[in-house]
Amino acid sequence: MPCIHYCHSLPHASASFHRRLEHASSSTSTKGFPSMRHHRTSLGLHPLAPLQDDHAKHERQDLFWSRVRTTLREPFSEFWGTVIMISFGNGSIAQVLLSTGQTSGAPGGSGFGNYQSVNWGWGLGVMLGIYVAGDSGAYLNPAITFSNCLYRQLPWRRFPAYFTAQLLGSMVGSCIVYANYISAIDYYEGGHGMRTVPPAPKATAGIFATYPQPFVTKASQFFSEFIASAILMFVIFALKDRANMGMAKSDQWFPFMLLFLVFGMGSCFGWETGYALNLARDLGPRLMSYALGYGSEVWSAGGYYFWIPMVAPWLGCIFGGFLYDAFIYTGQSPVNAPFLGLSHFFHPRREVRAKLQAEKDLQMV
Amino acid sequence: MPCIHYCHSLPHASASFHRRLEHASSSTSTKGFPSMRHHRTSLGLHPLAPLQDDHAKHERQDLFWSRVRTTLREPFSEFWGTVIMISFGNGSIAQVLLSTGQTSGAPGGSGFGNYQSVNWGWGLGVMLGIYVAGDSGAYLNPAITFSNCLYRQLPWRRFPAYFTAQLLGSMVGSCIVYANYISAIDYYEGGHGMRTVPPAPKATAGIFATYPQPFVTKASQFFSEFIASAILMFVIFALKDRANMGMAKSDQWFPFMLLFLVFGMGSCFGWETGYALNLARDLGPRLMSYALGYGSEVWSAGGYYFWIPMVAPWLGCIFGGFLYDAFIYTGQSPVNAPFLGLSHFFHPRREVRAKLQAEKDLQMV
Amino acid sequence: MPCIHYCHSLPHASASFHRRLEHASSSTSTKGFPSMRHHRTSLGLHPLAPLQDDHAKHERQDLFWSRVRTTLREPFSEFWGTVIMISFGNGSIAQVLLSTGQTSGAPGGSGFGNYQSVNWGWGLGVMLGIYVAGDSGAYLNPAITFSNCLYRQLPWRRFPAYFTAQLLGSMVGSCIVYANYISAIDYYEGGHGMRTVPPAPKATAGIFATYPQPFVTKASQFFSEFIASAILMFVIFALKDRANMGMAKSDQWFPFMLLFLVFGMGSCFGWETGYALNLARDLGPRLMSYALGYGSEVWSAGGYYFWIPMVAPWLGCIFGGFLYDAFIYTGQSPVNAPFLGLSHFFHPRREVRAKLQAEKDLQMV
Amino acid sequence: MPCIHYCHSLPHASASFHRRLEHASSSTSTKGFPSMRHHRTSLGLHPLAPLQDDHAKHERQDLFWSRVRTTLREPFSEFWGTVIMISFGNGSIAQVLLSTGQTSGAPGGSGFGNYQSVNWGWGLGVMLGIYVAGDSGAYLNPAITFSNCLYRQLPWRRFPAYFTAQLLGSMVGSCIVYANYISAIDYYEGGHGMRTVPPAPKATAGIFATYPQPFVTKASQFFSEFIASAILMFVIFALKDRANMGMAKSDQWFPFMLLFLVFGMGSCFGWETGYALNLARDLGPRLMSYALGYGSEVWSAGGYYFWIPMVAPWLGCIFGGFLYDAFIYTGQSPVNAPFLGLSHFFHPRREVRAKLQAEKDLQMV
Repeated sequence: MPCIHYCHSLPHASASFHRRLEHASSSTSTKGFPSMRHHRTSLGLHPLAPLQDDHAKHERQDLFWSRVRTTLREPFSEFWGTVIMISFGNGSIAQVLLSTGQTSGAPGGSGFGNYQSVNWGWGLGVMLGIYVAGDSGAYLNPAITFSNCLYRQLPWRRFPAYFTAQLLGSMVGSCIVYANYISAIDYYEGGHGMRTVPPAPKATAGIFATYPQPFVTKASQFFSEFIASAILMFVIFALKDRANMGMAKSDQWFPFMLLFLVFGMGSCFGWETGYALNLARDLGPRLMSYALGYGSEVWSAGGYYFWIPMVAPWLGCIFGGFLYDAFIYTGQSPVNAPFLGLSHFFHPRREVRAKLQAEKDLQMV
Repeated sequence: MPCIHYCHSLPHASASFHRRLEHASSSTSTKGFPSMRHHRTSLGLHPLAPLQDDHAKHERQDLFWSRVRTTLREPFSEFWGTVIMISFGNGSIAQVLLSTGQTSGAPGGSGFGNYQSVNWGWGLGVMLGIYVAGDSGAYLNPAITFSNCLYRQLPWRRFPAYFTAQLLGSMVGSCIVYANYISAIDYYEGGHGMRTVPPAPKATAGIFATYPQPFVTKASQFFSEFIASAILMFVIFALKDRANMGMAKSDQWFPFMLLFLVFGMGSCFGWETGYALNLARDLGPRLMSYALGYGSEVWSAGGYYFWIPMVAPWLGCIFGGFLYDAFIYTGQSPVNAPFLGLSHFFHPRREVRAKLQAEKDLQMV
Repeated sequence: MPCIHYCHSLPHASASFHRRLEHASSSTSTKGFPSMRHHRTSLGLHPLAPLQDDHAKHERQDLFWSRVRTTLREPFSEFWGTVIMISFGNGSIAQVLLSTGQTSGAPGGSGFGNYQSVNWGWGLGVMLGIYVAGDSGAYLNPAITFSNCLYRQLPWRRFPAYFTAQLLGSMVGSCIVYANYISAIDYYEGGHGMRTVPPAPKATAGIFATYPQPFVTKASQFFSEFIASAILMFVIFALKDRANMGMAKSDQWFPFMLLFLVFGMGSCFGWETGYALNLARDLGPRLMSYALGYGSEVWSAGGYYFWIPMVAPWLGCIFGGFLYDAFIYTGQSPVNAPFLGLSHFFHPRREVRAKLQAEKDLQMV
Repeated sequence: MPCIHYCHSLPHASASFHRRLEHASSSTSTKGFPSMRHHRTSLGLHPLAPLQDDHAKHERQDLFWSRVRTTLREPFSEFWGTVIMISFGNGSIAQVLLSTGQTSGAPGGSGFGNYQSVNWGWGLGVMLGIYVAGDSGAYLNPAITFSNCLYRQLPWRRFPAYFTAQLLGSMVGSCIVYANYISAIDYYEGGHGMRTVPPAPKATAGIFATYPQPFVTKASQFFSEFIASAILMFVIFALKDRANMGMAKSDQWFPFMLLFLVFGMGSCFGWETGYALNLARDLGPRLMSYALGYGSEVWSAGGYYFWIPMVAPWLGCIFGGFLYDAFIYTGQSPVNAPFLGLSHFFHPRREVRAKLQAEKDLQMV
């Protein structure tokens, strides 16, 4: 049984993989579906879905829904990966928060979990989400998708489809958690339909979106999200850099290491602002909690904190990726260009045209 | 030394493995035992036991007990795997619950474990149980066995033997825990032979079966077990889908990832209803605790809650498997059929006949 | 660089490995040292030390100390592996117990660890100990060594050297912990040189050896150690059984899985008697604590409990190994013999002679 | 895509790797840059940077900054690896300490983490730091670098560049943590700009450097750091010794095992002195906290404790490495020399000359 070995962040390897797919597909089933290639291209996706040869040859791929599934493969993957991530992440906060202080019927006599459980919940949510999504290079986080476009030759036109899938997925994930814990939220808040936002004493909005600690200044809020995102991106690029440590950082270990990376983020930089590090993780559940009746305070709480986890992760990921590429990465990157890549700003059109041409040569468009 | 590489959920690979076995066996020892093939077939098992060639050739396989062991290989595996799973799982609850609040002689001054220990206990119990059971595709859980029959071509006639072994194993496992902690239960309940069921203040029945939190409505009870089972099945199918992420999800990682999946279930969806997610895990110990003197309240507690962990996991696993196959899976599955597999309901007999014929061709019957 | 792949529990593979070594050695350096083979044989060890070819050829292997190191390779490995295991295990209890309730200067405000830290300490102590000892099949535990002799063809004459090394190692390991925490023990006990044994309120003897909970009956004490040892042995045999699940249980995963197995033992069966499961782990530190001034109560405490962790693990491991071989194992084992191996008792001399002859044929003597 | 497999601690393998690199490079890009080789040699580094062939051939390696990056590859790697290690390590202490006792808005009702979170923080900081740094053999710790020079043929002239990078990295890492938690430190200490050192009741200096428990004697302080460093070095050498257990200790597992080793250090030997085990980890943040206004008490606290984590780790690592080489290691090591390597002291010049010549033969200079 042939096994596809995805080679991320190495455009030529990726291209060769797709050429192989191309070959396999054109000789078999996809031939008959020029429309699928067209649909995928118009969505900004690679003309060919990343499917295993065996499965691609399957006789039933002609069915209508199979074609939909293949056409929307990456968006579906990102969507469900984010659903899983948010289900575990928001679910862990819900369980720990709502059971705080419960003594009767609680093994150990003090609730059902502690803050560390929340860290494990997010860590393994990300890991299992990546297993579900496949290793798409998108990592369930628009800021990381963005950095991969910027530094690792992921085509920009992929971005909108990934972004949409991630945001929808996080909304659905937080919905599942809300539906699961609705009677417990009523019980904890102290009445049917009561919904409050921090710093209210029995607030449950923190299950869904992040809210900062009250004593943290606006600058510290921003810096905390910024620096944590930068470390996140820096380490992810290190984990994906095959030139750095050879086979020790194979794809087999990558999702597992993200478990510890995210767990560590929560253990070391998670207190002040709740380590959103991710627009989709924060905005999706925030929208959902607004729609479900938590009121406009989900936006105004913490001095209109909501925009910080929307903005800081992008800048942080860009900065972290820049540091890695400037000091360690030796592969193809805009930073490995004259004037550390700043020339791109002087001749943007020329750059864009050259890149598009290169992608066409590699049949990535 | 030849090493068998099990290829799960891919029927043709599995078949080729069995053909190889067939060849190896027919030329050596099994030839003389048509009765073993007959016995195994009548139990619904594959005619040939999944044994390594080396061992199959062993000279002493003709002994009476060796033939029993080979004939009942999968049921024995499932039985002992479930025993191990329940021993660790129920054992962790027993230790944490019964030592709650103990200060003298307890390192750290507060009992011997906390709620997180229970999550680790179930997680590693499942992992070590799978190592013991071999990766049979059954996962010590009848609802998952059922979903594998429904979506992954595990023949239906395997189901009764697996189910029986799982249920008996969970009863024996909870028996071991009871025997181990009998004096501690007496001490905790406050008298020799006292046995109470939640919500009694010193109830110990929660060591064995699951009981819901008092404030959770019947609908929330059902939904909690349903959605957690759906996530469980969805992620297991993702972890087993070789087309999704290639070698990164090899069999080597699978049992280890189940540790985190089950740990996460307990950390994120374990409070309201105790995350049974498994008829065998709940019904077996419940029967045992009834037999051991906890009284009829094991059935009536929580508003006759007992039927929910018997029913919800099946529906949840079926739903989770359906979602995975509908949106991500591209291999052979009834969902990858016209009308999302609903045609099976229109022509059930034709389908059954075709499937049986295919299995016969692959020598799986 | 050639890499030695140890094939445990498969006598013929092990023999072929040693034959290879034989060949490599006889043509190079060992030739000149018939005395080393003699010394090793007289210690009950394999005539040839399990060394990598490259290293064996090293020019400086003729030095006196190098020959000592090679001659005593397995005892040295077991010794240091046990030292590491006990250092971490006893060290974790010391740190958690002695810092119980400390609030000032403690991050989190409640001591330096909790009961779970003790479980992690023993789990990773065993794992790192196995890495240090190499995977000798002895597992730093005389009862497991014994079971490997009984069921897995480890020659009996190996036993005394392994046993001695394990016992000495555990004494040295507990000595290191005592030396490290001596001023903290003085502080905790409330005076210089004060040393008390449970159930004294400030007892510290529990750092070294195990003492049962006061309410546990003698029968429960015995059963707890017995059943936990049986589960330990059962799962270890499953993890080592290559016919059970193929490559998924390779040697690469084995030490890591022992981390979780031992962690689980502590989380699920560790409260009542302290999960010694190992004569060396308990007797060595107990002797050491007796010698260091804890008084004769180390023997009399818990109703002369000390003999239970000396006896129960042997019987438990024998029982657990028997269950695995009777119900699952299909390789060579005395249980896979007529009358489940009971014939050995009828013709012991004939059996012993045949086994010795077989070992001689394989050059294992 | 060729994959570089680093072969650590085996000088001949390392040499052959570099020869391969040499070949690859001399035929392609590096030819034109004799100055880079010169610069690297004058820094004590190997003349050729350890780069993957593919990347080395990259067209843009001629740019000024690319050449700087290649010239300073190992120092940059060590620098950023230490930054990551200290960010997570110091960050975890900061979060747990500063949130101690917080009840409102804390899931679980008691702060954001406990002492175990600190152990995880340091463990995963080391692991991720090694992933970032590549497996340079330096391990972000000058004492370990030193031991590798002493026992594993890492040339001494590499030491200054590694040491400088490690110290600078730890200063920058602690700076990041300080900047991130500055408003929380103000809040915890009770006033803007208040900075106190243990044993002050609200001291926060312990976030950065280590301070001993008050009751620990000077001798116990020293012994605690000494013995923990010895165990650290002993286990690392075991994990790196390919002759000990074959492939089970491949490079793939090494960084992950360091997670548990460091976690275990903190769980078992972390209370009395804070397990610095590393001059860079302790001195860098101490210098930084001195510069940032914690006053001269960072030096005088604990009876001028500061010199112990500067001295004890060196002696401990030397002792631990000696034990491993004397009792277990069979490869090339000064301990495997006449009189256990003491002859080096009698003829130092001859030894040095011979070693330099050998290195030149291997093109390591």
